[in-house]
Amino acid sequence: MDFVENGGVVSPAGFQAAGIACGLKRNKAADLALLKSDCPCNFAGTFTTNLFPAAPVQLCKERVLNQKTVRAVVVNSGVANACVGLGGYDDAVKMCEITARELGVAPEEVMVSSTGRIGNRLPMDIIEKGIGMAAKELSYEGGAAAARAIMTTDTRPKELAVSFLVDGKKVTIGGMCKGAGMIAPLMAVPHATMLCYITTDAEVSNETLSAMLGESVSESFNRVNVDGDMSTNDTVLILANGASGVKIEAGTSAAESFRSALDIVTVTLARAIAMDGEGATKFVSVEVAGAANDKEAEYCARTIANSMLCKTAWFGCDPNWGRVLAAAGRSGAAFSPENVSLDYDDMPVVRNGVDAGTPESELCEVMNRNEFTIHLNLGEGNGTFTVWTCDISHEYVTINADYHT
Amino acid sequence: MDFVENGGVVSPAGFQAAGIACGLKRNKAADLALLKSDCPCNFAGTFTTNLFPAAPVQLCKERVLNQKTVRAVVVNSGVANACVGLGGYDDAVKMCEITARELGVAPEEVMVSSTGRIGNRLPMDIIEKGIGMAAKELSYEGGAAAARAIMTTDTRPKELAVSFLVDGKKVTIGGMCKGAGMIAPLMAVPHATMLCYITTDAEVSNETLSAMLGESVSESFNRVNVDGDMSTNDTVLILANGASGVKIEAGTSAAESFRSALDIVTVTLARAIAMDGEGATKFVSVEVAGAANDKEAEYCARTIANSMLCKTAWFGCDPNWGRVLAAAGRSGAAFSPENVSLDYDDMPVVRNGVDAGTPESELCEVMNRNEFTIHLNLGEGNGTFTVWTCDISHEYVTINADYHT
Repeated sequence: MDFVENGGVVSPAGFQAAGIACGLKRNKAADLALLKSDCPCNFAGTFTTNLFPAAPVQLCKERVLNQKTVRAVVVNSGVANACVGLGGYDDAVKMCEITARELGVAPEEVMVSSTGRIGNRLPMDIIEKGIGMAAKELSYEGGAAAARAIMTTDTRPKELAVSFLVDGKKVTIGGMCKGAGMIAPLMAVPHATMLCYITTDAEVSNETLSAMLGESVSESFNRVNVDGDMSTNDTVLILANGASGVKIEAGTSAAESFRSALDIVTVTLARAIAMDGEGATKFVSVEVAGAANDKEAEYCARTIANSMLCKTAWFGCDPNWGRVLAAAGRSGAAFSPENVSLDYDDMPVVRNGVDAGTPESELCEVMNRNEFTIHLNLGEGNGTFTVWTCDISHEYVTINADYHT
Repeated sequence: MDFVENGGVVSPAGFQAAGIACGLKRNKAADLALLKSDCPCNFAGTFTTNLFPAAPVQLCKERVLNQKTVRAVVVNSGVANACVGLGGYDDAVKMCEITARELGVAPEEVMVSSTGRIGNRLPMDIIEKGIGMAAKELSYEGGAAAARAIMTTDTRPKELAVSFLVDGKKVTIGGMCKGAGMIAPLMAVPHATMLCYITTDAEVSNETLSAMLGESVSESFNRVNVDGDMSTNDTVLILANGASGVKIEAGTSAAESFRSALDIVTVTLARAIAMDGEGATKFVSVEVAGAANDKEAEYCARTIANSMLCKTAWFGCDPNWGRVLAAAGRSGAAFSPENVSLDYDDMPVVRNGVDAGTPESELCEVMNRNEFTIHLNLGEGNGTFTVWTCDISHEYVTINADYHT
């Protein structure tokens, strides 16, 4: 398994991308991305479970049900096309039609996403102009530009690609994602405004893609928490165009390699979202073990990751372990306080429910790291779950109090 | 029903109180309160459901089970006496013993609470000195001093008293509470570090007190959300000493008057907690109606009240209604987006799931108020629930990132 240098969605053979600024964002940053495959792609997708799914999410779900293959994806940032009524759906359809016309494919072969402010209609004249501009920019080197164009409050683009060999032939999986706030994904299976697009030049059936993507997302994006808010627009898509000439069939060792590579892409992108959480200064892994079962471990890890008091303590580099235990205590997970142990990285914090005696100065040293792990063992059973999260800073409040203006 | 001028826990006949500074808080603010009744009191209590209940909570729960009457309450702020193992329980017992000795009552007749930082043992020498100081200060005018001594990050004391007549005789109910962070109470029935002490000179049985307190708390403190974090120390106690000579029996009109007065005390104090939320600049009522049932209305209202994105938008005076709908959409409440309506105070915001067309400037005017109500109707059934909450500001982050130091 190799990481592709400067890899992204165009690293797999036969994919072109572009990212341009068409004026959807006031600050004139890039705001429209196109992704196109040279040949039809098998595909799968997983989406927000929010009862207010955005119009493009509704349309993509229909495509997953009705289409055998797709050729392109169009994504705009700046306007979410959510909560705008039936007109929003018409706009999403129109985005696909314009893209299809520009690229010479069928409208049904185009997937569409929007991210940004909820409640506003898309300015379709600007979108139409933007798609035309992006179509002219499409290239086999356009991955980085596309990764920038899908950003909202993200501070940096998130993309990578990995490759592996099957019978001497190279298969590549690339991906890009965005997401910095409204991140507590639970998609399909289980939520963010996070958008992720994965490409591969392997040939994989829709059924196998769907099964692998669902599992991989539940072990990656669904473990990320920035602020506990679930978006109306969350979308993960995977497109497989077969350009490598390698066919991946379920149950084979090649499928295992594919799944491993896919997991590297999803986990790396998921962790990048937590690391780039709005205003975040720290990346924190919350690893709960010893729960009665995995579900209770999940409740517990999510409650800690979502606790305002824990997140602000992390920002303040404050070992305040009482807040971690208090969050566990209200999480719904069953346990006996006297069996609980807690470690910050390799530093014992709590043993048998009480202070482990590590000098506070040593705990503070851990809390000052840019990245650390909270290990909580409930001493009840074998259930485990890990959530990747971040602290909550003044900057988070500034970003979200001012997002509107 | 009359509000007692400058009323508090000593407004009912036969109660004395005191609040002093004994050095538990570094800033030398008042940190130890005593409350004493001239005669034995029937009593009831409701407590945090956190699996890590603080030592004094454990002890108070035992008193509720084993004692028929109590005479006094001792409360310290600065140290929570939580998550410190069995020694913490011994300290709580000792606080009662010292108080009993100073006041000339039995140790079992003393209730005890602690609030402050989790994980540290109480400095019992300071506590002992403080109880001695407070005992000397006890007076029929000491309510305001006690209300100040139980504060932690509160910016102001919270107390009131109301009185009503039963057959020409005056009955008074007084109360004081603290709580500004770690507020999402669900006690006994359903969570905060909130502490509340209610006194009355009515004679009421323990059974009636318990039933009325449970109902009143579920309709007041359990509707408050500051940050979604449930404390290890939440306690609400009511003490009835009978000094008014009026007996309140369940099922009578006098009991109805008593309950109404109790509700005024609990609701007023509960709202005061949300208004004084850590760093809060706004008091927001989230009223959900039209849910399939009350439980779903509750999920929905709590999810909105707890949404970081909603709370930061309120801080920014941003009408961003998409965040309210997105929170409702992930709350678990069932509804059809096209049936949803939303109002900010008297201003229509959403009709049939889409923008109601009210000019944004008018919505911004509402958002600039110190206090407003979010009315969300899901259009599904008759379920309703209201939560009192506040915004999340830079100051919240500062307070909680720096609480440690």
